[in-house]
Amino acid sequence: MSFSLAEREDTIIALATPQGVGAIAVIRLSGKDAIKVTNEVFFGKNLENQPSHTIHFGTIRNGEKIIDEVLVSIFKAPKSFTKENVVEISTHGSSYIINQVLKLFVRKGVRLAKPGEFTQRAFLNGQFDLAQAEAVADLIHADSETSHQAALNQMRGGFSSEIQELRNQLIHFASMIELELDFTEEDVEFASRNDLRVLVERILRIVEELILSFDLGNVIKNGVPTVIAGKPNAGKSTLLNALLNEEKAIVSDIAGTTRDFIEDEISIGGVIFRFIDTAGLRETTDTIEAIGVSRTQEKMKTASLILYLFDLSDTDLVEINRDINKLENLGVPFLKVANKTDKAKENIISELKAQHPDTIFISAGQKENLEGLKARILELVNLDKFRTGNTIVTNVRHYDSLTKTRESLLDVLTGLDNQVTNDFLAMDIRRALHYLGEITGAVTTDDLLANIFSKFCIGK
Amino acid sequence: MSFSLAEREDTIIALATPQGVGAIAVIRLSGKDAIKVTNEVFFGKNLENQPSHTIHFGTIRNGEKIIDEVLVSIFKAPKSFTKENVVEISTHGSSYIINQVLKLFVRKGVRLAKPGEFTQRAFLNGQFDLAQAEAVADLIHADSETSHQAALNQMRGGFSSEIQELRNQLIHFASMIELELDFTEEDVEFASRNDLRVLVERILRIVEELILSFDLGNVIKNGVPTVIAGKPNAGKSTLLNALLNEEKAIVSDIAGTTRDFIEDEISIGGVIFRFIDTAGLRETTDTIEAIGVSRTQEKMKTASLILYLFDLSDTDLVEINRDINKLENLGVPFLKVANKTDKAKENIISELKAQHPDTIFISAGQKENLEGLKARILELVNLDKFRTGNTIVTNVRHYDSLTKTRESLLDVLTGLDNQVTNDFLAMDIRRALHYLGEITGAVTTDDLLANIFSKFCIGK
Repeated sequence: MSFSLAEREDTIIALATPQGVGAIAVIRLSGKDAIKVTNEVFFGKNLENQPSHTIHFGTIRNGEKIIDEVLVSIFKAPKSFTKENVVEISTHGSSYIINQVLKLFVRKGVRLAKPGEFTQRAFLNGQFDLAQAEAVADLIHADSETSHQAALNQMRGGFSSEIQELRNQLIHFASMIELELDFTEEDVEFASRNDLRVLVERILRIVEELILSFDLGNVIKNGVPTVIAGKPNAGKSTLLNALLNEEKAIVSDIAGTTRDFIEDEISIGGVIFRFIDTAGLRETTDTIEAIGVSRTQEKMKTASLILYLFDLSDTDLVEINRDINKLENLGVPFLKVANKTDKAKENIISELKAQHPDTIFISAGQKENLEGLKARILELVNLDKFRTGNTIVTNVRHYDSLTKTRESLLDVLTGLDNQVTNDFLAMDIRRALHYLGEITGAVTTDDLLANIFSKFCIGK
Repeated sequence: MSFSLAEREDTIIALATPQGVGAIAVIRLSGKDAIKVTNEVFFGKNLENQPSHTIHFGTIRNGEKIIDEVLVSIFKAPKSFTKENVVEISTHGSSYIINQVLKLFVRKGVRLAKPGEFTQRAFLNGQFDLAQAEAVADLIHADSETSHQAALNQMRGGFSSEIQELRNQLIHFASMIELELDFTEEDVEFASRNDLRVLVERILRIVEELILSFDLGNVIKNGVPTVIAGKPNAGKSTLLNALLNEEKAIVSDIAGTTRDFIEDEISIGGVIFRFIDTAGLRETTDTIEAIGVSRTQEKMKTASLILYLFDLSDTDLVEINRDINKLENLGVPFLKVANKTDKAKENIISELKAQHPDTIFISAGQKENLEGLKARILELVNLDKFRTGNTIVTNVRHYDSLTKTRESLLDVLTGLDNQVTNDFLAMDIRRALHYLGEITGAVTTDDLLANIFSKFCIGK
């Protein structure tokens, strides 16, 4: 899907609120004629005479027939989300009414908006850069405090300004070097090669840090992949359900806002933990084999965190030590979780405390010490770095551009080492500038834009 | 659930748009402190200094932490839906953000609204009467043109004003007769017994007409119960799918508005037809028996419309005539639908046309003449009476009050016939006034209100 220049002149319309039954629905229009066309079907007052950022009560009519009583909000260009004329029509939340209103405007020549078209117009009209526009979609889908903060920071430009500043400094050098090309006869040096090297090395460090942050960013956006491992009767499903139910109880505290609960994802301290391959765990009988089986081991290797659960009433230290040994060889961070404290065999707790002082003792069935377990889980993933407000890359497209930027910058350094000619040096710098520019949208192609915005929901 | 006077003083909050992913969500506050409390967490400008019906951009913050960039709409009492101070906060459509905003306001002492509480406040503050308030809920759930128009008419007061006017005339007589009670010694007659009889008879006619309209109203609100009858291979499932698919295609014309499609409901010409017991029809093999089976006959009796479908390639006239004869004895309106015109046996079409000129010829598989069938279906249910704008009762509570009004009015007439004393006459008139008043809310009890508004969705 691509947006031609002619399409950018259209006035567009879409439902901006979710499908389904609600008290109200908001239909949004953007474009040159948004206010004029709305005024043609609105009865109550002349909308074209109203100031920006005002709200007006009246009826939307199809000829003589009233479709609904509505509130119409007016935003005049450039003081709107898209920097175009924008109208928001707040109707009663009936799908029948929404349909009728959309059809009415379509008959009047307004076009149904494509996914992300409102945000794309905001970007094209200079409301914000591309990384900020992409953050709008991330923000809507954020479902934990950390992913929400990362998206909000990016939308508010924290991420972009850093990239932008680096890029501006590099542009300065590129211009100087290109200027030298005009004076090749005279052997001048406008750009100090030494200063350039210092700058490129500084940018490289920051770019590499951003690239490294992507792993963390990915965890923030998609959750920490977690496995509960243990023997069939260790209580894995009980633990998972106990954690899930507690989360559900918190969520449903706020009546009417129970969010679509993604099964087997738990938010602990603002971080999402995604439990891998728990389908079997939720059944009445555990089907995941003990740790020894190699298929299970393969799965555990893809996790970022393993909870090794064992049953204090039905395990001995020999067995536990053997399992722990295997887990240590896996190289994935894991927690030793001793379950069923209420039914523990004699002496096993004190022996465990002696041999494995870092063991966490819980009773999943009695919901005992789940808080302690959660605190230890958070400790292990250690997202403190993120909390200090460091910039985090969460977008795979940005990661890709950053990787290509790094390659180009390394080429610049190699060029400096080998004292290549100015035209080669300028070319490598331009390439780095191109990839950095892709992130903020300073450099774009139609395909890139279409690809980014088609992932948005309609109405955004 | 009941709403105490103290609760009416609370400032309340709720999500007004549906759950789920959308570009924006609207959170609504109503109450004395709505603007003041919002101002405490809003950064951008001082909302308390802003005029009514204006929109303001800024951030909602929890202490230092930004929750979202938002648009805040201000409505000052009494110029709002509830006639109280109202704030609408338009956030990004993320359930995480919605949760955070609601929690923030709850911590500041704002109460989560109960279902229908906004509309109830609108009613209690005199924005509209009870029948109009109830129509708001009907309007949101209306899914066809007829049910939508009925709800919209009622919300805009068409229904209420008629009831109100009748009631006012009766109040006048009641007062006159009660006045006579103060002058019993003097044998005066302020209220002409003849005029009273004329008025009561006139009201009775209108009330009875409204009671009769309930059957039609019920059909409009809940759909026309329809059965497709016929032998296992007549093509019943093919016909149902053909009608459903066509409807689905129309609905999905408008991208992004595909409504929650209720299986086996079809809107034809703005009227919903609800197909009874079609579960079997949708399977690959037809499971409903031929007309002869008594269980099937019982089901058909509950229908308002039967489509009798027979296969032109595999039925003879003797069989068809026998079935038609049985259907005529049922007493339910039915259409004779001859299917598979493309595979008809020799002569059967001409013979049918001679013996049953009202037969409709279709091919469900080839989608031939479905339009003709739909036109005949609409003809048969004949909702023209409704289309002329006559008042229709769709609410079972109103139906109940009207029935009790009728009883009371009949008692008044009997009283006049038997020349009962004034106090008895006044009592019966008061009873009629009470039940009429229940419809518009001129007479209410806490239980009645709680019962009505608890059926609303939260945020309305």
